Amino acid sequence: MGFAVSENHDTKPLIQPTWHTFLKRWCASWLHWPRAQRRASREDWLFNGTFHEASRGVLMMAQLFSIMPVCGILAKDPRKLRFSYTAGRAFYAYFCAIGIGFLTTMSVYFFASKRYHFQKMVTAFFYCYNLYAMYRFGRLGQRWPALMVKWTRVDDSLPPQKGLFERAVLAYRIKLCSIMVMALSLSEHLLSIVAAVHYSNNCPAVHDPYEAFFKSNFAFVYYYFPYSTWRGFLTKFFNVICNFMWSYVDLFVIVISMGLSHAFRRINAHLFLHKREKMTEQFWDEQRQKYRNVCDLVTTVDDHISAITMLSISNNLFFICVQILNSMNSRPTLVHTVYFWFNLIILIGRTLAVAMFAAEVNDESKRPIEVLRTIPREGWCLEAKRFAEEVTTDTVALTGLKFFSMTRQLVLNVTGAIITYELVLIQFHKDEASDVDLCKLKRMDTL
Amino acid sequence: MGFAVSENHDTKPLIQPTWHTFLKRWCASWLHWPRAQRRASREDWLFNGTFHEASRGVLMMAQLFSIMPVCGILAKDPRKLRFSYTAGRAFYAYFCAIGIGFLTTMSVYFFASKRYHFQKMVTAFFYCYNLYAMYRFGRLGQRWPALMVKWTRVDDSLPPQKGLFERAVLAYRIKLCSIMVMALSLSEHLLSIVAAVHYSNNCPAVHDPYEAFFKSNFAFVYYYFPYSTWRGFLTKFFNVICNFMWSYVDLFVIVISMGLSHAFRRINAHLFLHKREKMTEQFWDEQRQKYRNVCDLVTTVDDHISAITMLSISNNLFFICVQILNSMNSRPTLVHTVYFWFNLIILIGRTLAVAMFAAEVNDESKRPIEVLRTIPREGWCLEAKRFAEEVTTDTVALTGLKFFSMTRQLVLNVTGAIITYELVLIQFHKDEASDVDLCKLKRMDTL
Amino acid sequence: MGFAVSENHDTKPLIQPTWHTFLKRWCASWLHWPRAQRRASREDWLFNGTFHEASRGVLMMAQLFSIMPVCGILAKDPRKLRFSYTAGRAFYAYFCAIGIGFLTTMSVYFFASKRYHFQKMVTAFFYCYNLYAMYRFGRLGQRWPALMVKWTRVDDSLPPQKGLFERAVLAYRIKLCSIMVMALSLSEHLLSIVAAVHYSNNCPAVHDPYEAFFKSNFAFVYYYFPYSTWRGFLTKFFNVICNFMWSYVDLFVIVISMGLSHAFRRINAHLFLHKREKMTEQFWDEQRQKYRNVCDLVTTVDDHISAITMLSISNNLFFICVQILNSMNSRPTLVHTVYFWFNLIILIGRTLAVAMFAAEVNDESKRPIEVLRTIPREGWCLEAKRFAEEVTTDTVALTGLKFFSMTRQLVLNVTGAIITYELVLIQFHKDEASDVDLCKLKRMDTL
Amino acid sequence: MGFAVSENHDTKPLIQPTWHTFLKRWCASWLHWPRAQRRASREDWLFNGTFHEASRGVLMMAQLFSIMPVCGILAKDPRKLRFSYTAGRAFYAYFCAIGIGFLTTMSVYFFASKRYHFQKMVTAFFYCYNLYAMYRFGRLGQRWPALMVKWTRVDDSLPPQKGLFERAVLAYRIKLCSIMVMALSLSEHLLSIVAAVHYSNNCPAVHDPYEAFFKSNFAFVYYYFPYSTWRGFLTKFFNVICNFMWSYVDLFVIVISMGLSHAFRRINAHLFLHKREKMTEQFWDEQRQKYRNVCDLVTTVDDHISAITMLSISNNLFFICVQILNSMNSRPTLVHTVYFWFNLIILIGRTLAVAMFAAEVNDESKRPIEVLRTIPREGWCLEAKRFAEEVTTDTVALTGLKFFSMTRQLVLNVTGAIITYELVLIQFHKDEASDVDLCKLKRMDTL
Repeated sequence: MGFAVSENHDTKPLIQPTWHTFLKRWCASWLHWPRAQRRASREDWLFNGTFHEASRGVLMMAQLFSIMPVCGILAKDPRKLRFSYTAGRAFYAYFCAIGIGFLTTMSVYFFASKRYHFQKMVTAFFYCYNLYAMYRFGRLGQRWPALMVKWTRVDDSLPPQKGLFERAVLAYRIKLCSIMVMALSLSEHLLSIVAAVHYSNNCPAVHDPYEAFFKSNFAFVYYYFPYSTWRGFLTKFFNVICNFMWSYVDLFVIVISMGLSHAFRRINAHLFLHKREKMTEQFWDEQRQKYRNVCDLVTTVDDHISAITMLSISNNLFFICVQILNSMNSRPTLVHTVYFWFNLIILIGRTLAVAMFAAEVNDESKRPIEVLRTIPREGWCLEAKRFAEEVTTDTVALTGLKFFSMTRQLVLNVTGAIITYELVLIQFHKDEASDVDLCKLKRMDTL
Repeated sequence: MGFAVSENHDTKPLIQPTWHTFLKRWCASWLHWPRAQRRASREDWLFNGTFHEASRGVLMMAQLFSIMPVCGILAKDPRKLRFSYTAGRAFYAYFCAIGIGFLTTMSVYFFASKRYHFQKMVTAFFYCYNLYAMYRFGRLGQRWPALMVKWTRVDDSLPPQKGLFERAVLAYRIKLCSIMVMALSLSEHLLSIVAAVHYSNNCPAVHDPYEAFFKSNFAFVYYYFPYSTWRGFLTKFFNVICNFMWSYVDLFVIVISMGLSHAFRRINAHLFLHKREKMTEQFWDEQRQKYRNVCDLVTTVDDHISAITMLSISNNLFFICVQILNSMNSRPTLVHTVYFWFNLIILIGRTLAVAMFAAEVNDESKRPIEVLRTIPREGWCLEAKRFAEEVTTDTVALTGLKFFSMTRQLVLNVTGAIITYELVLIQFHKDEASDVDLCKLKRMDTL
Repeated sequence: MGFAVSENHDTKPLIQPTWHTFLKRWCASWLHWPRAQRRASREDWLFNGTFHEASRGVLMMAQLFSIMPVCGILAKDPRKLRFSYTAGRAFYAYFCAIGIGFLTTMSVYFFASKRYHFQKMVTAFFYCYNLYAMYRFGRLGQRWPALMVKWTRVDDSLPPQKGLFERAVLAYRIKLCSIMVMALSLSEHLLSIVAAVHYSNNCPAVHDPYEAFFKSNFAFVYYYFPYSTWRGFLTKFFNVICNFMWSYVDLFVIVISMGLSHAFRRINAHLFLHKREKMTEQFWDEQRQKYRNVCDLVTTVDDHISAITMLSISNNLFFICVQILNSMNSRPTLVHTVYFWFNLIILIGRTLAVAMFAAEVNDESKRPIEVLRTIPREGWCLEAKRFAEEVTTDTVALTGLKFFSMTRQLVLNVTGAIITYELVLIQFHKDEASDVDLCKLKRMDTL
Repeated sequence: MGFAVSENHDTKPLIQPTWHTFLKRWCASWLHWPRAQRRASREDWLFNGTFHEASRGVLMMAQLFSIMPVCGILAKDPRKLRFSYTAGRAFYAYFCAIGIGFLTTMSVYFFASKRYHFQKMVTAFFYCYNLYAMYRFGRLGQRWPALMVKWTRVDDSLPPQKGLFERAVLAYRIKLCSIMVMALSLSEHLLSIVAAVHYSNNCPAVHDPYEAFFKSNFAFVYYYFPYSTWRGFLTKFFNVICNFMWSYVDLFVIVISMGLSHAFRRINAHLFLHKREKMTEQFWDEQRQKYRNVCDLVTTVDDHISAITMLSISNNLFFICVQILNSMNSRPTLVHTVYFWFNLIILIGRTLAVAMFAAEVNDESKRPIEVLRTIPREGWCLEAKRFAEEVTTDTVALTGLKFFSMTRQLVLNVTGAIITYELVLIQFHKDEASDVDLCKLKRMDTL
């Protein structure tokens, strides 16, 4: 788990010429952003503050790993987005899907054909999960252009954002968050490679270090197929894509949540300007309709991505349980120990991040009530009442396949479940507490 | 578990002459439907789109297995339904009830008289459950005619369905679903017979294959009574009815749920035609009353079938727990392994199907709010407000004996409970994880 | 556990002369009711349908066991009730309290002074519990007269009950329920004595059967004090009172719940007469106030008895857990086995009865909404709206120390908790499932 | 765990001269309160009933242990409060923070450098927790002056309190509660010292009793550093501050809760004067605004202290789990046994106290509904309706980092979780129940 950004030398031969151009643009927009902007035309330079604009960098990065191949993803105008089955990036995606499909088949076969083994099941699950995630992103890609058009229309209907900074803040936050998530995932993946190399070097049977590394990592392939160096690198390439996807699913939910909570925040900021003031019924009607538009947007977005949200949450919980189970085992070397705990902390941190960012959508959707409660008696009107009722009654949140809403309550429940699980495990493995000697006991009692 | 449709040669001698005629009609309506319709009179041919009409095929099939012996079940007009204690099908039901009662008594006695054994308890539970289900369906049969009259009246009061297809869609969906559920149950039952035959052939003690099969399957009968071939087939016949009933309880809840959610869907479809429009108070009053009628119908239906819903859910959960417990045991042959997992998957799938279809009633009952929230300011009136309050406040859903509502939340809880149970079990049986060797560990860490 | 009604020969010497008279009256009212009524004066004969009148028989019975010594409990007019610290029955209660206090002290000392033993803890808990229950009933007794005056006032304000039967139905239901609960408890207690006698006879060390019985039953007393026959009977007498109290706490909550749900039922019956009718705002105002009065009554009663409700629920859950834990042990004789399961079934049944009757208060308090939802458009008024809001928003129910409401939901949760606990236990004790032989396995698979 | 008030001889050299004066004032205000008051000036003598005034004694005490070093804490006027980084008490706090930081570092290092040991983890957790609590109180201190100004403004806007007693009751209650909590903590800490001394005396290896005591108590320091007497006392001094902080976190939440629920109680008292009366819309508007102010205050306070509330609850739950786990171990001496159970009871009692006092805020915020429900028909107005809606819809309560609200429901859940945990543990350690002999069994059955 983890991913490697420095895959360019691998991926280059596979990329059609058009890739060069937007790889360059993407790098520019991502790494040398201020300089690139200076050169760009005026209307390109000005942020208009829509979500589409803020998210295109992240989506572009995902396309490098063959996820959601929508054409024109960097266009400023969402109406220029389109999904094509015959575009170059679609073929790149087909190629990767076939590769991952192959790995999935092999890992499932390897798991099913031998006697039950827990770790093999985990590997098979990992590839199945990524293949399904790829499929879901493909489906989402088809509907992405229409969704972005709708989202931009809602963004435009919101209270205007004054000043450059206000319009750029969403884009900055998304970029910052993406870089952090991806940097952590990358370092985790590199650490996993270090651990694996460190370990395979100790096995003197195989002389080629690459061969030892790939063979031990992809036993489910090379158990059935002969090994060669280019095959090794190809499997690693697909594995890197899977590792990227594994983090990207979480990142995607975070980015979407940021966009939605930002929309609510714009409404709230406008409402808080008029706290304790007597406003006309006309005003409340307009605000309510803006609020309603964003609520509808949340529902529409959720219809499209609730499967991905479910994937993210269920997958993270599954791997946390697996790692907690593994935490009871001893590890062969120090590198493994460091890697193990780093991995577990990143896993829990990312799960909490997804849950918290998604919960923020719900939190922000509740905040108008603070203004509505302070309307003075003479400003209280039918539309304000309707607004208050909608805010208090409806649950506006992203969901996991409509089964659960992503709220702060969920964060608590999930944390509680993990702690309970950990406690039960400690319970069963707490052998040394019975042979506690007196000195240790005393120290505890008196702290 | 599982049932055999090809019981005709067994059941024929037991059927009174009148059965011939409606068996023929039922077969016609079921298998050769378009041809049968062509011959039928004009008013018979036209679907009027009521639930009674759509469900009569399934109910007819159930009557072949002696469940809910209501006369005139195939009549188009629900007022022609009647329940009689002295009709032929009632006597058929008495006969089967006596047989199943006998099996129940024997299995309970066999369980109680020996020392505690888990599998015997399961068998005794299976027959008790089916006998009770039969009783509940009998009670329901008495009240079915009145219920159908009420339901048809509500159906007639709903917004009219234009076009043939719209009126036929409910009937088609119910038929499709019934065929799927029953085909899966049938194949599961056949597989169980194959497994049993395969196994009893290996016991060389008994020479007659039928005798070996029946004796090993109905040990709780032939431990006390001498065996003969016709007795063997008779016990098998009652066993088949039990297996059918076992699946039918679930199917019945699904069919009822389909009917109720279809009624809500008709209202919603009409409401969505007027989304964002300004309507008169008169309009909202009428819609609210239609909605109220369906809500009342749900309550009435639930009063009648909540015991059956409870049976379905509790029984499925019980058997899922049993099978998960059994999953830790080793199985003697491959056929048993295949059968076991097939059975478990069908069991979980059917439980989820029941829960999801029943939850759909609740989901559909909430959808009018989407229209009500978009009423423009000048169209907002007292009746719209009442409607919105009713939709948001009341929980309209089927229940299990009024203890829990069948909602999506329940599906999540039930799934969570099963997964927790499975995790705890894996926990206790996870012995091989402690003796994990280094190679396996590394593969996991690096995936 | 269990209690003996035939304690008259024991309790007689302890009762002051005044007891004779109301014992006679009580027996008359209880056993020979119709005859006693015929002799009574006219106003005594006519039921007025208040709760005080319906419950006085049960309370009288409790006073025989020294619980809640309120004077004038049989008076028709609640204003004649009074609590006195110096009345005869108060002294009787002091005497019993001292005795039970003594047993409690001894059992706690016996538990604390020896090394930890589970069963001793249970015994100590049993006496502590009963002493505390006695204290709570004493406290309740002080406030009972005022409570009954208030309750009767609310009863009088409700829609009038026409006909003798309607006024008598609450009294009949309470009597029927009391007799059932008490008869079951009595038979259980007698069975426990049979089991103990049966067992102590097998110990040849002690020759006097009484001595053997009392010594083995009250080891925590006779371990420290010498035995004599009258001491034995005295301890048994206090033990009988404890056993009675143990059942009576549950019965008391049931009786109170019956009274409260009856009050709601009277309102509902009146409302359902006007279902779908257009009524004046005046009408809804009156009904709402009646409903409010009963809600206030529920709150007031709950303030007084919530500790007793908590006692009932927590005690029952505790003993169910204890008995489920014990169910894993083997029992020495068949009598013990029968007694054990009888005890467990009664325990679970009584717990469910308490929970269901208490939940009925909540259920009935929700039913006005069915009428309110069907008010036609022109009959909808501000008071109806207020009424509907109150019914849907407020939770009107008995509570356990205000921590949880007694609703149907609670019944489900409690049942779920017990089943989970049982499952976990079966889990750990399921040894024989691993050595399951092939024949048993097959039988299960094919049922 | 526990703390020692008699630390004066230790802390004196560290205190700047200004401390003398307010130590004297604090002692006066705390111990000899009535006498001190008599001497004070008139405006000092009169209680004005604000929370700031009532809580300053407790905060002063905390400052003796270097917690929340706000200057002018004893001033009557909250506008005289100020936070300074360069005040004497700030330097005292820096000094203590450095000392505790050192202990924290050592204990974490001691835990991490050796193989996993449960009790070492608990010690490391204890110091980390206290360091973090100190940081949180420091942050709170910065914002305390502004918060108190706001709180006092709200207090002044509430219905006036007539009479001296009414204005003094909050201060008295807070003082009483503080004394109780601190006295219990002190006795517990002294008992822990007795246990430790009693034990270290039995180790003949070390001759100096102080050395033996400090070395065994602070093994994580003296394992790495040489021991000397003044070092020993210094570590003990920091340990005492940690022990005080450990109790003070709970006490602080209790005091804040008391203040908030008192504010609601003042509103409720005023409202209940007008129960069942017809009031003007003006009246309800004013009351609603007062209520709203207090709700806003709760939100503001919660924004500041929700981290401390979370700390309090999570820490207590953690230590309860630890102690329940430890309860299965045997203890070396009677003193340890007494200390252990005393500690556990205090821990549970304090946790429940925190939960109950915090839940009271929520309970009191719901009480206006009792008055609003009884408004007669002609007194029902728009503002009353708004008030009722706010009371029933909003959850006004302290929270743990906004994840959970402190309500009575939480108390139940927490208690349930602890009991479940205990039950599971008993389950696994219940060995002697299987070898139960017949006599014990019988006694249980018949109680």
